[in-house]
Amino acid sequence: MRKFINKPDAVARETLDGFLAVHGRDFEAVPGALAIRRRSRTGKVAIVSGGGSGHEPVWLEYLGPGFADAVCQGDVFAAPDPHSIVTTAKSVDSGHGVLFLYGNYSGDRLNFDLAADLLREDGHQVETVRIADDVAAAGPDRMADRRGIAGGFFAAKIAGAAAEAGLPLESVRALTQQAADCTRSIGVASGAGIVPGTGQPTFELPDGKMEIGMGMHGEVGVRRADLMTADDTVDAMLDLVLADRPVPAGDPVCLLVNGLGATTRAELFIAARRAVENLTERGVAIHDTQVGEFATSQEMHGFSLSVFAMPPELRPHYDAPARTSFFHGVNGS
Amino acid sequence: MRKFINKPDAVARETLDGFLAVHGRDFEAVPGALAIRRRSRTGKVAIVSGGGSGHEPVWLEYLGPGFADAVCQGDVFAAPDPHSIVTTAKSVDSGHGVLFLYGNYSGDRLNFDLAADLLREDGHQVETVRIADDVAAAGPDRMADRRGIAGGFFAAKIAGAAAEAGLPLESVRALTQQAADCTRSIGVASGAGIVPGTGQPTFELPDGKMEIGMGMHGEVGVRRADLMTADDTVDAMLDLVLADRPVPAGDPVCLLVNGLGATTRAELFIAARRAVENLTERGVAIHDTQVGEFATSQEMHGFSLSVFAMPPELRPHYDAPARTSFFHGVNGS
Repeated sequence: MRKFINKPDAVARETLDGFLAVHGRDFEAVPGALAIRRRSRTGKVAIVSGGGSGHEPVWLEYLGPGFADAVCQGDVFAAPDPHSIVTTAKSVDSGHGVLFLYGNYSGDRLNFDLAADLLREDGHQVETVRIADDVAAAGPDRMADRRGIAGGFFAAKIAGAAAEAGLPLESVRALTQQAADCTRSIGVASGAGIVPGTGQPTFELPDGKMEIGMGMHGEVGVRRADLMTADDTVDAMLDLVLADRPVPAGDPVCLLVNGLGATTRAELFIAARRAVENLTERGVAIHDTQVGEFATSQEMHGFSLSVFAMPPELRPHYDAPARTSFFHGVNGS
Repeated sequence: MRKFINKPDAVARETLDGFLAVHGRDFEAVPGALAIRRRSRTGKVAIVSGGGSGHEPVWLEYLGPGFADAVCQGDVFAAPDPHSIVTTAKSVDSGHGVLFLYGNYSGDRLNFDLAADLLREDGHQVETVRIADDVAAAGPDRMADRRGIAGGFFAAKIAGAAAEAGLPLESVRALTQQAADCTRSIGVASGAGIVPGTGQPTFELPDGKMEIGMGMHGEVGVRRADLMTADDTVDAMLDLVLADRPVPAGDPVCLLVNGLGATTRAELFIAARRAVENLTERGVAIHDTQVGEFATSQEMHGFSLSVFAMPPELRPHYDAPARTSFFHGVNGS
């Protein structure tokens, strides 16, 4: 174990405390929960995200104007408990209702659904969008079984913008669901991350091998192969992503190249270079490309690609200004 | 080797191509060099940075309004050649002169100095500031032998702002040198990065050990120890940094917590939490804290801390708006 931490069971709390030590001007702790919220909140639909810690920046840092209003974290790789989710949602509901936005994992589903029931009993309006963008997790006939990975960035961007625009809860939900439905992702890894609690890698992978389609907690992928070149890897990933949801030539997409932890920025740019080439060769119009860490799996060595086939009506929300600790704005291309 | 690349000798060029594929609206290649420049340039002092590739975001991404106007890169861990530096500088000199800003390494010194001579022979005004913030590299009696690490962020921020403010070359140089002189840094690592060309780690470190003060190319540090807790590590680092340049209670500092590659964002926030606590206990006033990757060493597992004891006259330049692909603005605290 090579991590600079204090105690494994303090990682989630101390990460949140560190985030507040840096960003305390804009955010504050939610009393009674492992959660934070924006200090400045206006009368609008509240976006509430959350999930297991250990994937930073998601969800801890998906906070700010144009993104989430509050996030409720669990321990590393563990769902937040229903009581904490309720406390968090109540602390930011201005009476315009709450949209829950989280990754499609069974623990998160159970606890957010229970929290939604409890909140509704208390008179709050609650709607839910689950991120399920990983094409490797299940076939197109089992979309509800797909995991949420870094492509959740796009739904979060749309949700935050739609809420800032003052739209009612049902419209915010519908636009966010549309963004989630139009996003497909896949990841590759050449080395596993280490879980702080056990000191063990999330999966075993011999040197010189890569896993295609593994999950963010080390879930098994669709194929193991000898480590390929960056270009061949990107081409194989886009084949899988675009087979699952073809993008007609001329249609606009947004592209996300996400580092899973230990991957260098050079590797991410090399992958972005080929992904842009590949999509351009297919006649796809790239509206925006994001490169960086958006959802990690500890120090996993690998990256994911997400393609958001952006419907025209979502474009103003995508391009709307936003500010978080990890997002710099739309780049264009 | 676990890297997703095509060929080791193509890493530097393809990284730059990828950066342009993403940020091509704002930046363009400098013909004839492994270099890029801002598309939009005004009549002002040009800030030109550069150095070996492999430390991204530095220097490749230190580009944009309020930062550098052009960067000239070498191959991985190798200085750019003098001819390329000359070509890069000429391509952005609007007649107001050029400030070279780079890390204090012998190859960079030789080649930037030769480039400066050639440019002066051609009638260009050129000044230089070298980053030498690493207190572990040499004692206070040998400041000129110190290496430049992530603390160069502060000098780059001041240089860019001073140039945008329209100050003349000598003033930009003096303010940038002042920022460099007021910055001290130190790094720790629990695992080495891998050089793409050799597939070998930059240094050997047994599991469970940490190196204090190692350099960004694996240069030997000041001490090897058993892996300490995050809090003890941060305290030891700040002891070394503040012993080298004490900060009187009440004086404002800016703090940088820099990930060296494989370190998780959680670890960086845990370190930031303790660094803010430690400095606050000392009575130091923290003006701003930056957390993220600002200068990496491939997938090295570790982080560095930099303290910028900000003179009051530099504050407006530090707080001035800026936009790069890695910097999000001042956080306050």
